[in-house]
Amino acid sequence: MESFMIYMPIALALLGLIYMLVKQSWVMKQDAGDGKMKEISDHIYEGALAFLNAEYRLLTVFVVIVAALLAIVSFVVPTTHWLIVIAFVFGAVFSAFAGNIGMKIATKTNVRTTQAARTSLPNALKISFGGGTVMGLGVAGLAVLGLTVFFIIFFHVFMDGVWTNTMDMTIVLETLAGFSLGAESIALFARVGGGIYTKAADVGADLVGKVEAGIPEDDPRNPATIADNVGDNVGDVAGMGADLFGSYVATVLAAMVLGNYVIKDMGGAISDAFGGIGPILLPMAIAGAGIIISIIGTMLVKIKSNDAKEAQVMGALNIGNWTSIVLVAVSCFGLVTWMLPETMKMNFFGEGLVEISSMRVFYATLVGLFVGAVISSVTEYYTGLGKKPILNIVQQSSTGAGTNIIAGLATGMISTFPSVLLFAGAIWASYAFAGFYGVALAASAMMATTAMQLAIDAFGPISDNAGGIAEMSEQEPIVRERTDILDSVGNTTAATGKGFAIASAALTSLALFAAYVTFTGIDGINIFKAPVLAMLFVGGMVPVVFSALAMNAVGKAAMEMVEEVRRQFRDIPGIMEGTGKPEYDKCVAISTQASLKEMMLPGLLTIGFPLVIAFVPMLFGMSHMAIAEMLGGYMAGVTVSGVLWAIFQNNAGGAWDNAKKSFEAGVEINGEMTYKGSDAHKAAVTGDTVGDPFKDTSGPSMNILIKLTCLIGLVIAPILGGHSSETAMATIEDEVSIEMTVKSKDMATATVDYSTMKDGEKVMETITFEGTQVEVEKELKAFEASLKNEAGDVEKVIEKVDITKE
Amino acid sequence: MESFMIYMPIALALLGLIYMLVKQSWVMKQDAGDGKMKEISDHIYEGALAFLNAEYRLLTVFVVIVAALLAIVSFVVPTTHWLIVIAFVFGAVFSAFAGNIGMKIATKTNVRTTQAARTSLPNALKISFGGGTVMGLGVAGLAVLGLTVFFIIFFHVFMDGVWTNTMDMTIVLETLAGFSLGAESIALFARVGGGIYTKAADVGADLVGKVEAGIPEDDPRNPATIADNVGDNVGDVAGMGADLFGSYVATVLAAMVLGNYVIKDMGGAISDAFGGIGPILLPMAIAGAGIIISIIGTMLVKIKSNDAKEAQVMGALNIGNWTSIVLVAVSCFGLVTWMLPETMKMNFFGEGLVEISSMRVFYATLVGLFVGAVISSVTEYYTGLGKKPILNIVQQSSTGAGTNIIAGLATGMISTFPSVLLFAGAIWASYAFAGFYGVALAASAMMATTAMQLAIDAFGPISDNAGGIAEMSEQEPIVRERTDILDSVGNTTAATGKGFAIASAALTSLALFAAYVTFTGIDGINIFKAPVLAMLFVGGMVPVVFSALAMNAVGKAAMEMVEEVRRQFRDIPGIMEGTGKPEYDKCVAISTQASLKEMMLPGLLTIGFPLVIAFVPMLFGMSHMAIAEMLGGYMAGVTVSGVLWAIFQNNAGGAWDNAKKSFEAGVEINGEMTYKGSDAHKAAVTGDTVGDPFKDTSGPSMNILIKLTCLIGLVIAPILGGHSSETAMATIEDEVSIEMTVKSKDMATATVDYSTMKDGEKVMETITFEGTQVEVEKELKAFEASLKNEAGDVEKVIEKVDITKE
Repeated sequence: MESFMIYMPIALALLGLIYMLVKQSWVMKQDAGDGKMKEISDHIYEGALAFLNAEYRLLTVFVVIVAALLAIVSFVVPTTHWLIVIAFVFGAVFSAFAGNIGMKIATKTNVRTTQAARTSLPNALKISFGGGTVMGLGVAGLAVLGLTVFFIIFFHVFMDGVWTNTMDMTIVLETLAGFSLGAESIALFARVGGGIYTKAADVGADLVGKVEAGIPEDDPRNPATIADNVGDNVGDVAGMGADLFGSYVATVLAAMVLGNYVIKDMGGAISDAFGGIGPILLPMAIAGAGIIISIIGTMLVKIKSNDAKEAQVMGALNIGNWTSIVLVAVSCFGLVTWMLPETMKMNFFGEGLVEISSMRVFYATLVGLFVGAVISSVTEYYTGLGKKPILNIVQQSSTGAGTNIIAGLATGMISTFPSVLLFAGAIWASYAFAGFYGVALAASAMMATTAMQLAIDAFGPISDNAGGIAEMSEQEPIVRERTDILDSVGNTTAATGKGFAIASAALTSLALFAAYVTFTGIDGINIFKAPVLAMLFVGGMVPVVFSALAMNAVGKAAMEMVEEVRRQFRDIPGIMEGTGKPEYDKCVAISTQASLKEMMLPGLLTIGFPLVIAFVPMLFGMSHMAIAEMLGGYMAGVTVSGVLWAIFQNNAGGAWDNAKKSFEAGVEINGEMTYKGSDAHKAAVTGDTVGDPFKDTSGPSMNILIKLTCLIGLVIAPILGGHSSETAMATIEDEVSIEMTVKSKDMATATVDYSTMKDGEKVMETITFEGTQVEVEKELKAFEASLKNEAGDVEKVIEKVDITKE
Repeated sequence: MESFMIYMPIALALLGLIYMLVKQSWVMKQDAGDGKMKEISDHIYEGALAFLNAEYRLLTVFVVIVAALLAIVSFVVPTTHWLIVIAFVFGAVFSAFAGNIGMKIATKTNVRTTQAARTSLPNALKISFGGGTVMGLGVAGLAVLGLTVFFIIFFHVFMDGVWTNTMDMTIVLETLAGFSLGAESIALFARVGGGIYTKAADVGADLVGKVEAGIPEDDPRNPATIADNVGDNVGDVAGMGADLFGSYVATVLAAMVLGNYVIKDMGGAISDAFGGIGPILLPMAIAGAGIIISIIGTMLVKIKSNDAKEAQVMGALNIGNWTSIVLVAVSCFGLVTWMLPETMKMNFFGEGLVEISSMRVFYATLVGLFVGAVISSVTEYYTGLGKKPILNIVQQSSTGAGTNIIAGLATGMISTFPSVLLFAGAIWASYAFAGFYGVALAASAMMATTAMQLAIDAFGPISDNAGGIAEMSEQEPIVRERTDILDSVGNTTAATGKGFAIASAALTSLALFAAYVTFTGIDGINIFKAPVLAMLFVGGMVPVVFSALAMNAVGKAAMEMVEEVRRQFRDIPGIMEGTGKPEYDKCVAISTQASLKEMMLPGLLTIGFPLVIAFVPMLFGMSHMAIAEMLGGYMAGVTVSGVLWAIFQNNAGGAWDNAKKSFEAGVEINGEMTYKGSDAHKAAVTGDTVGDPFKDTSGPSMNILIKLTCLIGLVIAPILGGHSSETAMATIEDEVSIEMTVKSKDMATATVDYSTMKDGEKVMETITFEGTQVEVEKELKAFEASLKNEAGDVEKVIEKVDITKE
């Protein structure tokens, strides 16, 4: 029977979206300020729209091509259903729509924040964080809504809304993977394209404006200044939103896939109040609960005093954040207790089926919440103002740019130490608690606070923009001071948010990786096999090359921007005197075109490699199981290397940035106070130039790279694992018969009659096992494994051969 | 019967060493120049000796500690023999001795090269390359000699010089691994310590001398200038020598280990003219042949014209190099044909035993030679003067240090693309040809030209030093011009030599990795197991953190040097006027102490991590097989990530270096010729400052890190794989009996009687298999695997259960 619980996440998602609409209309009702402010804000809004429109045009082409490819695959491969195309398109549309909501509200909130900052700081926080909240709930609400609706549809289409068996549910979830793939594809454009956009505009504006023309940042005479402000939104709002949208969907999907296999481990069916699919519904339920919890969390973010400083603002955000983490933990306890059987059977490697208390699933979710919280602290330590690593970089700046760069690189590199140990510990612990289902639920629990994380995250660029508008519209200094307080906190949350995004990408990829292995039906990924090891190497290389391409892309796009700004300064009369009007839109257009053009090559690399690994060896007749294992090795290589390079680049970039910022308030070097304009500061600026593409382009792109790689693997999985399996398995299902007789406590025999397809011919075989009952059971298992290894003859037989006792 | 072939490598090694002595005395007989030259050369020689002596003191402590630990292990663990301690000590002593020979000849040859350059360029090349030849033959000769002698000793101690079975030979080779471990430990000190030394001295000399005091490079008034010149020898001669010594020994050892398993695959014994151990002797024979071939190669390196330019010198080196590669290929063909059975059986994953022609082993060696040659070209493309990547970095220097740094980083990162594809292809191909034995022999063939490679490599720093001496002793410009030609070629060979060293480290590690898996007796390394995956992550992180520590170490050591040089400039009267004599030895002492102190932490990281992974879980009672697999995951992580970071750092560093050098001859930027002293050049100098520790410290250290990690794993392997196996296996060996009856062509039954230890009690068990012969054989195999998986009960049983047919 279908349970009402299946509809609960939809209700919660809709509630979140309604709250979002309320909050949105509240923000829009706020005073948008006077003429000049409004004018600048409109420019940013239009620039953002221009980027979105250009992106959407390109996206449409991309979505149509991939959809067509998926459609072809679904017609050729019997195990793939054409509904995956629909899921893919909707995944892309939902993600794009969520990004659209975020960009629009962010570019509308900025000017309102500036206006509010004219009256008081608490108001400014309320509005800027309100904008962030709209963004967060939009992403989380649409993610949960889309995923749940499509799950219900496919559950009805393929299973009539009633649990039958793991195989059928696998088809449901394989089709649902299309939604996730669509979402992550958009993230590729938003995160990578956005990352290139924001840095190209930033570097272009700085190089000509600050350096050549000698005008300050955010000066309205600079033609690239609007593009620069648009860039903040494109990269940090739309990019981050699409990134977390993708993680959110992929995590829940992977947890559902693994929940399906938990049911299989428990004998193929369980009896619970949720139509027998409690373990599959649980991750969706946690996601749904997370939306409500995030709403509560955002409500707690407020300050009272107009004289508040960074610490108070940070404190307010922390209260909201920590409350939601604690509430998620509580709700996980409740949901696990409610939705899972008290004891469960799970297959652990080397141990076989183990009976565990479902409480251990709850412990796994705690691991996820712990990782989400701790990774932020780690990131803050390595990139935070006044912390030891930053002080060291500042110190090294006194001996020139070279030593500053080395110190920054070393900081980023060393920061991988605690981060990776944390991830490794999390993998180990959550697996020890509840197998790969535990790993996926750890990720799900961490991602449950996505709406809250995004609200905190989006508030940063909104405040940054608000400051820019205050500057450009020449407000009183107090306004800029207030927005600066928000901006400064926003910089910290931006860094910690990046840590959260990496952690989410890492855990999501692991969950997807586990889902991939179970989908393909391979026993594992043995890197002692030379082709698998070779692919591990290749996978490890891809993030490095991807990062380099992304960095080079920034350079190329920035150069185009520089040319355009120079042209305008040259050709438009009176521009420097403020009488000529710069053509902002041309700069926006260049940044838009260049970023989308330059993301093609890294994008192609991301999508192309797994496809080549999967399909080229097929042409040479390699067994599908061997290919599946190779692709798994590739996925592992990308994930391990990608996580490392993400941490390295993000933290090095963040550290350089704050080392440079340290000079604004003045730093003590060798006993002397040193300020902006000193040689040491210039060295720090050089470091920041290197760090910019690290932290805003190539670093965050790693998240997409690893998730998308694992998702593509998951979508290919049925082709690899399921190819020719329908016929082969059907045959085996019909023919296999196992008789096991337990003669005494110690002795048993088992006879297996089965048929396999050999060179297209059905061959009948018999095998007998004799020994103690334990031995025979062990033999049967080994026999299953051996059948499975004969990939050329029989694939995925293990699902079908179960021991029946007499 | 023992074969004479076992003694052949000794004879060839001795021949190499004799030739070395002849060459050495020839070099020493050359004119060492007049007073000032000799004085400077003596300073360098004494500085080098000072470093060596300090290093040896520290080494002695280290060797004593590790030897004591190994001794304890050998008494506690029954499968480890105390002779491993002796092997370890000798491995360390031989490697140190080889380094000693190299350092001494290099520091004696430099001044003779300067002197020869006063007369003609051909003479200067002859002497400098002669010095390199001494170095190369010393390393290769001692490596082959030591390894072969110890193999023969252990072969007699454990097997009475007669083949018995794979298990016994495994003990021989496990003990021999001590020799390799000793050699690689010295490499840690020489490569990492040396890398820190050379850059600390370089940076210290430059920062105070060039920048603060404004005196040119290699100026004798600079107190750090001798340390700087010593550093070239410490890093590039002793470090590179120890690195390749370690690779050479480890590669041959790993190939022998895998040769042993080839014999096992062929039924446990083969009958050949080499006492039944042809596959084990083959890698030693190739190494021996390589020595003679290298001698021939070095003889071909000569130029005739006194007006020769870089191209002619490079051409002469290339002739020698290519000739030796071709000769190695020819000798591999001969040796493979002669020493291996015409057809061999090898176990391929998923395919079982496959009968292959031994020609496929020869093809595998070709793969190795191909990799060695191509990796040098790849390195040269990314770091060579006038090539596209360098021109791009030069171009990017015009917009400042920031863009120069980004371009350099990107170049290093992108260079991983062809390099990794090459390695991945090599793994795949050599495995496809002849399994992991093929991979190890590919590495062996590549390493056969070690003496030649080292000769080419050592000639660079010798010429560099010769130029320095010419400068310091104020020779006529023509002398410096001639040494500059040699130096310039030396820079190129240094870069390509680093590529060769990486390739050798990568292939060596893979071979060791394969040897490790076979030693421990695990089935493979399944990264789908969460703890293994966690360790893959941790392993991936270690090279990154190691690199950061090494880079920071350079910074700290350089700072100490800077203080000392400043003190001398302050305290010694008349030093700038050339009347006061700088205290060179104090600078040498500081560099020595600082480098050895600073290498402790990265060294501890390298050695500590595998030990922690192996022994801490043991305390918690984890099964040894599970630990072995985790450690394997760690090793794979270190190797994959280490190779990537080695390529990245070496090539980025080399690219920055040559981008800077491009300005010396002048470069065209935006249509304008730009020279030294321009802003673009200053930006390029900053890039080079970052690149220096990359290419000379952290980058090359990666080689040691990955090899040492895999070697430690190999030495631990018997503890993991063999623990309690003696009793358990002995029991099984006694009791196991397999009867297999083939009733007809298609039907067979097999009965296995065996005993296992369960909770300390011996339990008798019986199991019967019935079916077609193929099926039964498959079942027996699966059964073996299942027994093996029950790690708590029975370990390594697979070696003992063999199918006997009736």
